Amino acid sequence: MKYQTPKFFHVMQYAAAADGDVVDMVSGNPDWEPPEAIRTGLTQYADSDAEAFQYPPSDGLESLRSEIADHRGVDTDRVIVTNGTGEANYLGMARALDGDRGNEVVLIDPVYPYYPGKASMLGGETRLVAANRDGTLDAEATCAAITAETALVVLNTPNNPTGAVYDIEAINAVVETAADNDALVVVDEVYEAFDFTGEFESALTLEADNVIVTGGVSKSMAVTGFRVGYAIIPPALIEAAKTRHMLVNVATSRPAQQAVVDAYQATGTEYYAAARDRLETRIEQFTTALDDAGAAYTTPDGAFYVLAKFEEFPGTMANVKTLIDEAGVAGMPGATFGSAREDWIRFALVTPRVETAADRLADYFD
Amino acid sequence: MKYQTPKFFHVMQYAAAADGDVVDMVSGNPDWEPPEAIRTGLTQYADSDAEAFQYPPSDGLESLRSEIADHRGVDTDRVIVTNGTGEANYLGMARALDGDRGNEVVLIDPVYPYYPGKASMLGGETRLVAANRDGTLDAEATCAAITAETALVVLNTPNNPTGAVYDIEAINAVVETAADNDALVVVDEVYEAFDFTGEFESALTLEADNVIVTGGVSKSMAVTGFRVGYAIIPPALIEAAKTRHMLVNVATSRPAQQAVVDAYQATGTEYYAAARDRLETRIEQFTTALDDAGAAYTTPDGAFYVLAKFEEFPGTMANVKTLIDEAGVAGMPGATFGSAREDWIRFALVTPRVETAADRLADYFD
Repeated sequence: MKYQTPKFFHVMQYAAAADGDVVDMVSGNPDWEPPEAIRTGLTQYADSDAEAFQYPPSDGLESLRSEIADHRGVDTDRVIVTNGTGEANYLGMARALDGDRGNEVVLIDPVYPYYPGKASMLGGETRLVAANRDGTLDAEATCAAITAETALVVLNTPNNPTGAVYDIEAINAVVETAADNDALVVVDEVYEAFDFTGEFESALTLEADNVIVTGGVSKSMAVTGFRVGYAIIPPALIEAAKTRHMLVNVATSRPAQQAVVDAYQATGTEYYAAARDRLETRIEQFTTALDDAGAAYTTPDGAFYVLAKFEEFPGTMANVKTLIDEAGVAGMPGATFGSAREDWIRFALVTPRVETAADRLADYFD
Repeated sequence: MKYQTPKFFHVMQYAAAADGDVVDMVSGNPDWEPPEAIRTGLTQYADSDAEAFQYPPSDGLESLRSEIADHRGVDTDRVIVTNGTGEANYLGMARALDGDRGNEVVLIDPVYPYYPGKASMLGGETRLVAANRDGTLDAEATCAAITAETALVVLNTPNNPTGAVYDIEAINAVVETAADNDALVVVDEVYEAFDFTGEFESALTLEADNVIVTGGVSKSMAVTGFRVGYAIIPPALIEAAKTRHMLVNVATSRPAQQAVVDAYQATGTEYYAAARDRLETRIEQFTTALDDAGAAYTTPDGAFYVLAKFEEFPGTMANVKTLIDEAGVAGMPGATFGSAREDWIRFALVTPRVETAADRLADYFD
């Protein structure tokens, strides 16, 4: 079996080892404060009786599953707490590839590199379908790529790296075609808290029995290191997913689970609104500088990435390293995300130094 | 693909739902206090800068890998921090079954039920070899079971459920025969802190390039819910294991990792010695009562389980439920651990009420 290792780490290491000051816009770690209850929840947990330090239920603390179910408007029975959205995607994808559904996996290009990596690890064959030019889902092309051999389609909305928020009708068309071909659809909604359009609709609203929705609080609560995610799975598929979860991880880490329960209970909508406002300001600052640099770019409807394309400066690994060394700004090569945006560079707007980075890019390409 | 679901949960749920008072001796959750630094470490972590709440390195905090490497006497480069020993075993077993080594998995009967479950999930075929009558490794029979089709042997020492501490020469014989057949050996040493003989020798001392040793602090630091384990992997095998770890879990939960770093640094040998003393007292209390009950039993050299066999009362699920309802003591049916001890019942001595349970059993079988 061959694995495909994500290239994130290579770029991050190169940026960290650079001589000069570099604004790191590589990885998707929020740079803002988590909800206050994350800290107070952990502190209270640290004073618990020793019993609270022992195994939580394999599928997660009941209180956490209940909070997630409330937040996403589903029955608690459908929720498995996972080690971040990463494990949730792994469980969902495994569910599709574990049976007699075929072994083809349809992914959207540009693609988050963990998806083809997981597909390959699970014995799947990836088939890439290009997104529309604006990054939205090309429902027609995606449906046309689904055959009897298709086991799985993976969608991601709001999308990393394009920032597109998928139309629910487009998702529905893919879900229905998948159902006709006995394929599952995993919809990764980890960026659902970062929708700038107000029009994001979860795939859960389709109530389809071949849809697994994944998510987590890594981005929404700014705790990527806590590894608290979830999979919301149709009743007919959940027992096998729980078994795999148990056989791989037994359960996930309880201090983080408890802190997130407290944060769900204590955190109002203003926390999430403030994060969106902060990002919208940064998008404005950054894209204005990209205008000055004469670059083409995406203006995200969701998530927190901007794709930029500089004239005669394609987004190769070599050019990304040049930008690190000569401009002091680190992004991700477009080729990391498949072939559809290989001339582009992705910048994550999760640094307080977005304006500095923007100025540096404008100067460099002036 | 067919999964085998561990039966632990069924018994625990039955015991929890019982009308009367039940002493729970089902699961392996330590009932004593974790090291004080677990609490202070978590509390300090809760006050960290927000950056400390973001992704740790995929293979674990450098400081934690270094503490584990020191503790186990290996290079830090060989350590992957995992989501408990459970994930470590999964990674090790996957490494064996991912290549061209064959698909047979040799397991020792009685067997910890997660091993055949994981083997099956990973496409392996389990072949059980009976342990010696005293629970020790039958090296001759185990070596005889290893063929060109064998990909993997899984050993567990100190052993759950028998309490045997394997002789290093017996392990070495198995490791050499496995090497001759291009098979890996995963040695689960999660109970290494609970060796009452003073003679436990880690499989790491063999310095064999086909041995993966797994472990964790779940039992030793009494934090099964933290999910902090590790795999120690030979250099030629570690990159593929790291990739699988990344593709499944991305990384593991950082609050728990940091608290365990602090606990490694601040906790002296007296903490572990006290836990062993406590267990030795309980073993004495419990086996004395089993003598009174006229039962056969194992006296563990390591770990914290006692297997008991009552006259004309085989350890079936039905009889285990009878004991819960009529004696107020919950154990695990021997059949959960394969066929070699199916007449026996396993009792976990991780409750302060061992004496109560012992008295109840002595009364019930009087």
